[in-house]
Amino acid sequence: MVQIFVTGGTFDKEYNYIEGKLYFQDTHLPKMLVTGRCTLDIDVKTLMMIDSLEMTDADRSIIAHNCQRNEHARILITHGTDTIVQTATYLANANIENKTIVLTGAMIPYAFGTSSDGFFNMGSALAFVQMLPPGIYVVMNGRYFNWDNVRKNRKTGNFETIHPE
Amino acid sequence: MVQIFVTGGTFDKEYNYIEGKLYFQDTHLPKMLVTGRCTLDIDVKTLMMIDSLEMTDADRSIIAHNCQRNEHARILITHGTDTIVQTATYLANANIENKTIVLTGAMIPYAFGTSSDGFFNMGSALAFVQMLPPGIYVVMNGRYFNWDNVRKNRKTGNFETIHPE
Amino acid sequence: MVQIFVTGGTFDKEYNYIEGKLYFQDTHLPKMLVTGRCTLDIDVKTLMMIDSLEMTDADRSIIAHNCQRNEHARILITHGTDTIVQTATYLANANIENKTIVLTGAMIPYAFGTSSDGFFNMGSALAFVQMLPPGIYVVMNGRYFNWDNVRKNRKTGNFETIHPE
Amino acid sequence: MVQIFVTGGTFDKEYNYIEGKLYFQDTHLPKMLVTGRCTLDIDVKTLMMIDSLEMTDADRSIIAHNCQRNEHARILITHGTDTIVQTATYLANANIENKTIVLTGAMIPYAFGTSSDGFFNMGSALAFVQMLPPGIYVVMNGRYFNWDNVRKNRKTGNFETIHPE
Repeated sequence: MVQIFVTGGTFDKEYNYIEGKLYFQDTHLPKMLVTGRCTLDIDVKTLMMIDSLEMTDADRSIIAHNCQRNEHARILITHGTDTIVQTATYLANANIENKTIVLTGAMIPYAFGTSSDGFFNMGSALAFVQMLPPGIYVVMNGRYFNWDNVRKNRKTGNFETIHPE
Repeated sequence: MVQIFVTGGTFDKEYNYIEGKLYFQDTHLPKMLVTGRCTLDIDVKTLMMIDSLEMTDADRSIIAHNCQRNEHARILITHGTDTIVQTATYLANANIENKTIVLTGAMIPYAFGTSSDGFFNMGSALAFVQMLPPGIYVVMNGRYFNWDNVRKNRKTGNFETIHPE
Repeated sequence: MVQIFVTGGTFDKEYNYIEGKLYFQDTHLPKMLVTGRCTLDIDVKTLMMIDSLEMTDADRSIIAHNCQRNEHARILITHGTDTIVQTATYLANANIENKTIVLTGAMIPYAFGTSSDGFFNMGSALAFVQMLPPGIYVVMNGRYFNWDNVRKNRKTGNFETIHPE
Repeated sequence: MVQIFVTGGTFDKEYNYIEGKLYFQDTHLPKMLVTGRCTLDIDVKTLMMIDSLEMTDADRSIIAHNCQRNEHARILITHGTDTIVQTATYLANANIENKTIVLTGAMIPYAFGTSSDGFFNMGSALAFVQMLPPGIYVVMNGRYFNWDNVRKNRKTGNFETIHPE
């Protein structure tokens, strides 16, 4: 059993053709699990739908609280990539015991079709959350990173380790 | 470092608009790794491009031989779903030691756009091949299966365990 | 007001992932008109859902009969490309008076995503059916052809005039 | 022979995954004509790549000048929808004689996959520009509008006539 918490991020952004801007409507997670023909026992719960640049520590405490009180030991969180490491750090300091928590996101919205990395990331994040021991991780670029050894490269948009492995 | 061996299957089928039939051209793997923004060190080698219903034991011996002599310990094989379990069984009996070999496929060709499960499967298969201990596995539906406890359900198109877990 | 008659063809084919073959389910026309943001007054009626290679003169008489008794002067017919000229010829000999009838199709199914020509053909066929004088026409490749001066080039899959223009 | 002038607009916008904003790179027109299997004799020329809200009369004079000195009688202009009527009016007052000029755009970028109306609009605009008599027209929503009887409905994003027809 895997618990998915949706928080928004580029992953779930859509194009508002009246305003010409990106915005949030409903999450695409359920549709993605159907298209991926996923047969895992999964529960999807939307905690918030926000741009991670606008995420506050009050928002992060909601995420941490939900991770703590949730009965499941394996939790996947969709999150904007800009502050995904910040939230991972917050969760690492939140006294959440014996849980494998994976945060993932996307650089291009799933709604933008075959150019998006979101569907690939969802596949790898679901696999990693089943396999990794308790801890807080970021999954992007086909890899997993420990929360305390990852940063987003602002020029390439890719995630990389801070210290040599 | 992950070695990918391409063997064809629905995964890489395309639509021939002159004949109105499915066929094989080049593999989509490299494009998928770029779109998935994958930064793993990966080598892609096409062994064959065939429908798995037409795969013979001579073909399977080529796959086994390539797995044996390949220097990498983690190998991902794309394969048609109809005989993917048969090939997994063949590899399990081929005296390949200390290697993690994951076979994956797709029910809908990647070339058919956002309806395909292929991109999701590639993401999860790449994650599982990094995490699983040596052995032969099939990855579909967001899950991994040991080669000796998996079958394709012909009615649903999903993979399931044979024995209760 | 434009009347659309759906007869099937590659246009509306889908991929059956259990059988690995193409088949027909419901027509995509209503969804296409919504995505195209079409505000024309249009009625869509499905006459049949068949591969045009399997279309008989009995089927063609149904199409002709519906064109004759339909109250609208502008009719668009979706059709498989293999025998689209044959059906156009049948309609030209069916004593249908004072109607503009445009037949169009696709070389790649609309369901196969952004690689399909179907959405483009629908846009041009809807425009041509509004503008052309009474007669029977085939619309493909961004052009319209009179029913008695068009053939499908079997090598390229494109439509071309028989006689120089 | 049809001349296409590209000016930008939502039609050709792309998603910049580093900035998280829409921007312009190269036009998608050539790719669209290939996917649409268009066999018309067409020349594509990019005049500018701008958001139509930022288009000035200096920009419009460049468009008008290119329409005037161009040798072809049938011209298709891709344009942002926000000021497409303003540019059509500018061209109507620019003493361009004996030319059929059609302006079209999109509400959702072509780069956003199967949710975009762009490919449909391109199909209908190419058909209308071949059929309409000399004059200035806007083509959207499957219809053509005379330049002096069209407005964009800001609430729905659709185009409509100002005066009853």
